[in-house]
Amino acid sequence: MDTAQQKGTVQDATLSPTPSYSTLIRLELDRKPGMLGAVATAIGNVGGVIGDVSIVKRTREKTIRDITVDARNNEHEKLIVSTLNTIEGVRVIEVTDRTFFAHIGGKIEVVSRMSLDSVDKLSMAYTPGVARVCLAIQEDISRAFHLTIKRRTVAVVSDGTAVLGLGDIGPEAAMPVMEGKAMLFKEFGGVDAFPICLNTKDPGKIVDIVASISPGFGGINLEDISAPRCFEIEQQLIERLDIPVFHDDQHGTAVVVLAALINALKIVSKKKQDIKVVLSGIGAAGVACSKILMAVGVNHIIGCDRTGAIYRGRKEGMNSVKEWYAEHTNPEQCRGTLSEALRGADVFIGVSAAKLLSAQDIRGMGKDPIVFAMANPTPEIMPEEAQPYARIMATGRSDYPNQINNVLCFPGLFKGALRCYATRITEAMKIAAAEAIAQTVTEQELNESYIIPSVFNRGVGEAVAQAVETSAYKEGVARRHPADESFYHVT
Amino acid sequence: MDTAQQKGTVQDATLSPTPSYSTLIRLELDRKPGMLGAVATAIGNVGGVIGDVSIVKRTREKTIRDITVDARNNEHEKLIVSTLNTIEGVRVIEVTDRTFFAHIGGKIEVVSRMSLDSVDKLSMAYTPGVARVCLAIQEDISRAFHLTIKRRTVAVVSDGTAVLGLGDIGPEAAMPVMEGKAMLFKEFGGVDAFPICLNTKDPGKIVDIVASISPGFGGINLEDISAPRCFEIEQQLIERLDIPVFHDDQHGTAVVVLAALINALKIVSKKKQDIKVVLSGIGAAGVACSKILMAVGVNHIIGCDRTGAIYRGRKEGMNSVKEWYAEHTNPEQCRGTLSEALRGADVFIGVSAAKLLSAQDIRGMGKDPIVFAMANPTPEIMPEEAQPYARIMATGRSDYPNQINNVLCFPGLFKGALRCYATRITEAMKIAAAEAIAQTVTEQELNESYIIPSVFNRGVGEAVAQAVETSAYKEGVARRHPADESFYHVT
Repeated sequence: MDTAQQKGTVQDATLSPTPSYSTLIRLELDRKPGMLGAVATAIGNVGGVIGDVSIVKRTREKTIRDITVDARNNEHEKLIVSTLNTIEGVRVIEVTDRTFFAHIGGKIEVVSRMSLDSVDKLSMAYTPGVARVCLAIQEDISRAFHLTIKRRTVAVVSDGTAVLGLGDIGPEAAMPVMEGKAMLFKEFGGVDAFPICLNTKDPGKIVDIVASISPGFGGINLEDISAPRCFEIEQQLIERLDIPVFHDDQHGTAVVVLAALINALKIVSKKKQDIKVVLSGIGAAGVACSKILMAVGVNHIIGCDRTGAIYRGRKEGMNSVKEWYAEHTNPEQCRGTLSEALRGADVFIGVSAAKLLSAQDIRGMGKDPIVFAMANPTPEIMPEEAQPYARIMATGRSDYPNQINNVLCFPGLFKGALRCYATRITEAMKIAAAEAIAQTVTEQELNESYIIPSVFNRGVGEAVAQAVETSAYKEGVARRHPADESFYHVT
Repeated sequence: MDTAQQKGTVQDATLSPTPSYSTLIRLELDRKPGMLGAVATAIGNVGGVIGDVSIVKRTREKTIRDITVDARNNEHEKLIVSTLNTIEGVRVIEVTDRTFFAHIGGKIEVVSRMSLDSVDKLSMAYTPGVARVCLAIQEDISRAFHLTIKRRTVAVVSDGTAVLGLGDIGPEAAMPVMEGKAMLFKEFGGVDAFPICLNTKDPGKIVDIVASISPGFGGINLEDISAPRCFEIEQQLIERLDIPVFHDDQHGTAVVVLAALINALKIVSKKKQDIKVVLSGIGAAGVACSKILMAVGVNHIIGCDRTGAIYRGRKEGMNSVKEWYAEHTNPEQCRGTLSEALRGADVFIGVSAAKLLSAQDIRGMGKDPIVFAMANPTPEIMPEEAQPYARIMATGRSDYPNQINNVLCFPGLFKGALRCYATRITEAMKIAAAEAIAQTVTEQELNESYIIPSVFNRGVGEAVAQAVETSAYKEGVARRHPADESFYHVT
């Protein structure tokens, strides 16, 4: 669901100004009427979008103002600044890129949950008092869930090989994304998360390292690890560890797609068992989406890659994951292109690349087409093009209705799993999460432009957490027995 | 410097009540005059120490109060509670161990440094805006220091093999100490630290793991790893990584001991070159103390272990570290016991075990004996015993003057190193840290009971940081060039 850098030139007027190219421009203006108007008009004339305007300082002759301006890209930023410099009585003092500015020193922080301002507190939080807590955990290791950060903390682990749409950019360059992920965990799930970026790409080593650092964590969120390595790493870690291991690019996407599909099918009055789904992109996300759909009873799925439909006996561009895929999908053994596969289909799910579909392709689908075009930043088909034919349209973007965004899933999912000290995330827990997300859209609210809640809907995280926790107890993977935790009562 | 659990029975009246056995007792009292007096007297009679007293609720007939009481140990806590239950009109509702209570859910937290309450902020901190920051770091990896948490964050790494005085208690049980360490980093140095506890004891694997997780960190603080494995692990990591690697149990102790010694020598008017130092305990801390003393010009050091003085050609109880030690210390080849070695010595440094020395041993030292008895929780000799003969006495304990505590060193040391993106901690940087700690005690303040600042002296962290940073630039290990960081300015 991650959106890669928006590309394009300053001439590309189809690009909208975006907060990711937001600048803070400090200006010195002559103090006379009309100056701010002149500045605002000039910015508007070259296509910049003005945000906050504030006064920094006023003297008898000059006013210093900070103006926030969204641009299309770097070139556009420079155009705006040079335009301002041509206005008489205006001097640009400094221009700061707000996105870079927000990243200085990193975006997360480790803080104490209690102050250490006295010998007493120091003696409880550290030596000598802490020794008793250590011994209690040594006596019964399960107490670590109660008496350490394990209860509330997830490692966000990446090797930097498949970061956003940027590819293999390395562990240092992956850090800003992983820090952002940690922020999302906290903001939307109240879960503490810490980024661990690895400078090895060896799947066996990654498994060993993550297993070795696991004692302090209550869960592992794998992130932006390239396929097919991600499958092997996740599978081995699930087998080795007794805490949840979750590759968000796979399962987070799958859960939110399922949530959106549950609600979309309500609108078109179709049943999961009856629909034909065509899925484009057989990477980490595509495989996981297919699996969760099969788990809830979708029988007719056709997966397509660059070569077209995947079927038993296909020779070209296969690998072990695609062989498995060929065995378990495409019951009618369709062998065509993506466009051919799509004829008569009820649902399109795209986790592939920009502009693979035409309006004609959507037109050729069955009645009431459901189109989830989630390639980033540019979908498989733009909503404007699909509009005349698609009954329901969703993308990964925040600037169109129905944004399919993993942040609806992972914070609440881990919150629920941590709350009951779950040993793993089962298929049923993922499905429970999807149903909880779907249910936050009420029957009254549900319509073609609102099948999935907003990421800012603060009820989603807790709803998902409760559903996941309940499911964990049913599944027998919950370990928390609150009665065991009263050992710190003296009597 | 860490103090292990205080042991002893309820009968052991030499033990003082301590905040590490602090209970919160909730009482229901009949509402009539004299009840609190009766309660307070009863607690005092059995040796409990009352802290805060607060009212929870008052009805017409009853008052509910919370009373904080420090006890000697668990047995003593129970005695206090049973005594309260015998008072007429008093009912104990609940007794909570405050130390355990303070640990519920862990002691540290990961928080966002900016809010994510709008699409704009989300677009800057996460996708799509974050992609530009990722690309900037991919282009020039050194920008990670500026644009990620690397600039401010240290990993506190332990394998749980030598935790406090508790020994090999495992990674889960080590977590409360490492969380406490992270709190100290933040409180006294403003440095973010995150605990990584490893479930492997293999030195080669530990080196590999720490090297692999290092991209997101600006420094590595090794903690509570048993000797001699700690030497090998630290050395290999220093060679492999371009960020500071610092085993606090070795070098933190050494720095603070040197600081204390610098000031102690001022009082007795002796020179480093002239003194004879006897050091008891040739583990991680003992070797590091010896090395830093040699580095500043102390020529005459005799190290002792259980077998006695370490000398060239000794056969009993040797290992590779002690062989090195024998080659580089003990110029007069003393072969006696600890007591024999101590005759005529100017300084005793103990990082070994309880009660190894008698008052007679101190009496037999040279003029104005300096005694640093730092075994925990019980020193090599108690200050009361050493008192008549020692001119200057220091311990690791907070309940006697002159506490030699690593927290005076590591927060400021890493603060200074991170501030200049140092590649390593050199010997000169450690010595600079020691001198800075020593100098926070002014000439006017300096006396036998005040050779080292209090851990709550808030000036120490910044003084150490400045000294370390200045030294890092001199040593050529600083990498920060503030001019390079202006790339986020558009013009």
